[in-house]
Amino acid sequence: MLNFDLPVFDDILNAAEQIKGTANLTPLIESSDLNERVEGRVLLKVETLQRTGSFKFRGAYNRISRLDTKQYPGGIIAYSGGNHAQGAAASASLMQIPSMIMMPTNAVASKVEATRALGATVAFYPPDEADSRDERAQKIARKTGAVVVPSYDDPHVIAGQGTVGLEIFEAANDSGLSIDSLLVPCSGGGLAAGCSLAKDALSPNCKLYTVEPEGFDDTARSLRLGERVKNHPGAKSICDALLMSPPGELTYAINRNSVATGISVNDHDVRNAMIYAFYKLRLVLEPGGAVALAAILGGKLPTKNFTTALVLSGGNVDPDLFRSIVLDGVGTGNLLP
Amino acid sequence: MLNFDLPVFDDILNAAEQIKGTANLTPLIESSDLNERVEGRVLLKVETLQRTGSFKFRGAYNRISRLDTKQYPGGIIAYSGGNHAQGAAASASLMQIPSMIMMPTNAVASKVEATRALGATVAFYPPDEADSRDERAQKIARKTGAVVVPSYDDPHVIAGQGTVGLEIFEAANDSGLSIDSLLVPCSGGGLAAGCSLAKDALSPNCKLYTVEPEGFDDTARSLRLGERVKNHPGAKSICDALLMSPPGELTYAINRNSVATGISVNDHDVRNAMIYAFYKLRLVLEPGGAVALAAILGGKLPTKNFTTALVLSGGNVDPDLFRSIVLDGVGTGNLLP
Repeated sequence: MLNFDLPVFDDILNAAEQIKGTANLTPLIESSDLNERVEGRVLLKVETLQRTGSFKFRGAYNRISRLDTKQYPGGIIAYSGGNHAQGAAASASLMQIPSMIMMPTNAVASKVEATRALGATVAFYPPDEADSRDERAQKIARKTGAVVVPSYDDPHVIAGQGTVGLEIFEAANDSGLSIDSLLVPCSGGGLAAGCSLAKDALSPNCKLYTVEPEGFDDTARSLRLGERVKNHPGAKSICDALLMSPPGELTYAINRNSVATGISVNDHDVRNAMIYAFYKLRLVLEPGGAVALAAILGGKLPTKNFTTALVLSGGNVDPDLFRSIVLDGVGTGNLLP
Repeated sequence: MLNFDLPVFDDILNAAEQIKGTANLTPLIESSDLNERVEGRVLLKVETLQRTGSFKFRGAYNRISRLDTKQYPGGIIAYSGGNHAQGAAASASLMQIPSMIMMPTNAVASKVEATRALGATVAFYPPDEADSRDERAQKIARKTGAVVVPSYDDPHVIAGQGTVGLEIFEAANDSGLSIDSLLVPCSGGGLAAGCSLAKDALSPNCKLYTVEPEGFDDTARSLRLGERVKNHPGAKSICDALLMSPPGELTYAINRNSVATGISVNDHDVRNAMIYAFYKLRLVLEPGGAVALAAILGGKLPTKNFTTALVLSGGNVDPDLFRSIVLDGVGTGNLLP
């Protein structure tokens, strides 16, 4: 039995009030090309247009804006590959408190730069010491009078990410649409858990799918096995934003009741989705932000005559990687048919 | 005195009905970064998310979907540098009629390719024979039983483009916002004329600005001089979508009553706007689609404490040009401060 306070749907409504006017209200769009391609309707939640370029700002701000800042003279500490980093740094900056972000030494350079530009102090840790991240962060926090803001396993963070789902179901409802399937990129499971709660309250018949990179499908495997398992060591993926493992305790407890299936996509699928987004949607996606689109373009679930919603979760791509995936192959067969 | 049937606001409402469900309803978004940068509110109408990647589909479809196709066994003929080309070809394809598109020999290769992919037959003309385009198109049309669909000087085309303005003012109104200034990219003046009509009906106190590339500011100069003048020969610009001249008879007749000022931006301003859109908005813009954003980033009009709306009108950029402007200078100082 778990002994945590799991967030509930009311916490999402509350988070929506908390972030209103600070987070961007991102659009839910359709593309005729995509609809025709998958022979169904696809609703794209464009979180690349969110403040700091990914949905992560929502959860971070919902958590950090509630802090009693006097209690934490050292401000906040977070550890992240780069998107939660920027969400937390931007939130701390808005609250006028200091932020220290621990990033792996192999973090994408442009994410490190953007995090610093938001006013954070960045410290690095070796990627193979990821397991001790939290312990080290807590130790520093005790010394400096700071508080650690987790990237997913926190009720306010989950509720903040859940506003993505809330806005999707509300916008679909306004358009008279009923969503059959919702696909969300998944790493620690915060976005999936938040969207689970919104779905169960607003559209219980909708099927929720998590989408993970191949080799980093710890959520899919945990849901199948009935216990939280980690990713296998040695796996590789271009999706730097989706490498966290294992699923969170809170996120897993929510997702196991609500997620229909865990889907995996490989790097080839992801590259194709990034290329498609550039040439057909004129949108810039980072690899991890493209996995849900990759899943439907790759035919990983039925879309014909269905209404499928998915989250384009982030656009903080390394410019050199973007060039090599999207632009260097032009004219040499990298385009989708 | 003019002897044309000028479109009126009711024609825009009618166009909105005509294109509904076929054109994409594009979002009107805000970016906290952009708002903070210009110290005001900026509403971005993202027409890069329109079918065929630019607003041009609206006008073309509003015209072509009304054709008595039996009367025109040869289908439609259009001449265009590439965006009206794609809008017209896509509309003809939806109506299941043939399309022939005349494009200048220096058209962007990816636009030619995209036009062909939409089922059109493409014919080329030398750019220095642009003046005889219409005559040649009419001659072919008489031979083949086709009808020429103008890219801007046509009541249905203008009314179709006006749905951009209609949607902007409606969405702003839904959000309780009053728009002080509206900036639209301008070439032949169809988008400006349509937006003029919407503005005069829905938000008469809003100021309308046309934005043109330096050297191609025939609309600004015509409005100042009180007569339609052409661009000076020999001017150069990276904005391949905005090189048409002179302003249309219909569009000029509408715009001279409604446009506050014509603004010009140079290639440097445009490159900066494309870079900004990639790194901060995660949006792909073509040069001509970026001029209104370039105008506010370049401080061409007051934005502080104002609400400014602008149209990101197209995203059909040549991939090599995009790479050279947006990605090749990474790390060598091409980024905005």
